Amino acid sequence: MSRDLSGLTPIGHLETPYATTADCPRNGRQFTPIPLCHAVVAPEFQAGLVGLEGFSHLIVLYWMHQAKPTELVFTPPFDGSPRGVFATRAPWRPNPIALAVVAFEGFDTPGRLKIRNLDCIDGTLLLDIKPYLPTIDAEPNATMGWLEPHATR
Amino acid sequence: MSRDLSGLTPIGHLETPYATTADCPRNGRQFTPIPLCHAVVAPEFQAGLVGLEGFSHLIVLYWMHQAKPTELVFTPPFDGSPRGVFATRAPWRPNPIALAVVAFEGFDTPGRLKIRNLDCIDGTLLLDIKPYLPTIDAEPNATMGWLEPHATR
Repeated sequence: MSRDLSGLTPIGHLETPYATTADCPRNGRQFTPIPLCHAVVAPEFQAGLVGLEGFSHLIVLYWMHQAKPTELVFTPPFDGSPRGVFATRAPWRPNPIALAVVAFEGFDTPGRLKIRNLDCIDGTLLLDIKPYLPTIDAEPNATMGWLEPHATR
Repeated sequence: MSRDLSGLTPIGHLETPYATTADCPRNGRQFTPIPLCHAVVAPEFQAGLVGLEGFSHLIVLYWMHQAKPTELVFTPPFDGSPRGVFATRAPWRPNPIALAVVAFEGFDTPGRLKIRNLDCIDGTLLLDIKPYLPTIDAEPNATMGWLEPHATR
């Protein structure tokens, strides 16, 4: 059996305070307080949320539909050197799939999750929700290469 | 401008010691030593790797082409209760995209990255490589809900 790459199925959408890409922060945690956002899961996928309570953090995958066409190399405005897109988190990637590690604060209604740390525009299509597992996902001492002096904290 | 969901473009593939899904560990770090794996980026995408040196960890996104059809709720063999697929890392998701946080040990040849911590089968299609940023990706104190007593460490 095999699943082909011919299409993705949105499972819902994301609600954020950012109406346009110009409004989006570089880092979803850079405002104080960090704005409340929501992940809205369509009714036909809500059964998949059973057991999500108790995870403090989730990974959400979403589709950056407003991404420009792929640019494999570009010079970031805050840096002076050409960088490959795979050494950045920029949206103009061959597959414009983003991920965010979000704080999970429970459900507003079934299918509507309260989350924080998103940096994407309102209405972004949601592809997946995964539990964040510190045993395999947390590398607090990871080094950040060329981004080290530019990281927003 | 808008990018539609009608297709994904593999940027390369992953090489692992696991020939079948039955050979795959539950956690790519559970063997000692952790096996060396490779991410092979196709020539037409290798320009996007410029600037990747200096990151100790990367996030790889890949396509689980052998995933069974979606099962929104199932009972994990090591647990006794039905769990929603979004509360697990199981492959049978609406969009079978996986992510792994991998240790990056440099290039064998241009386009062939030495990495560790993969748990997928040999030949898995690679969708994206992103730099791991501890400032936004590391939550070492995250709680793990129902998975807490079952986590492989």
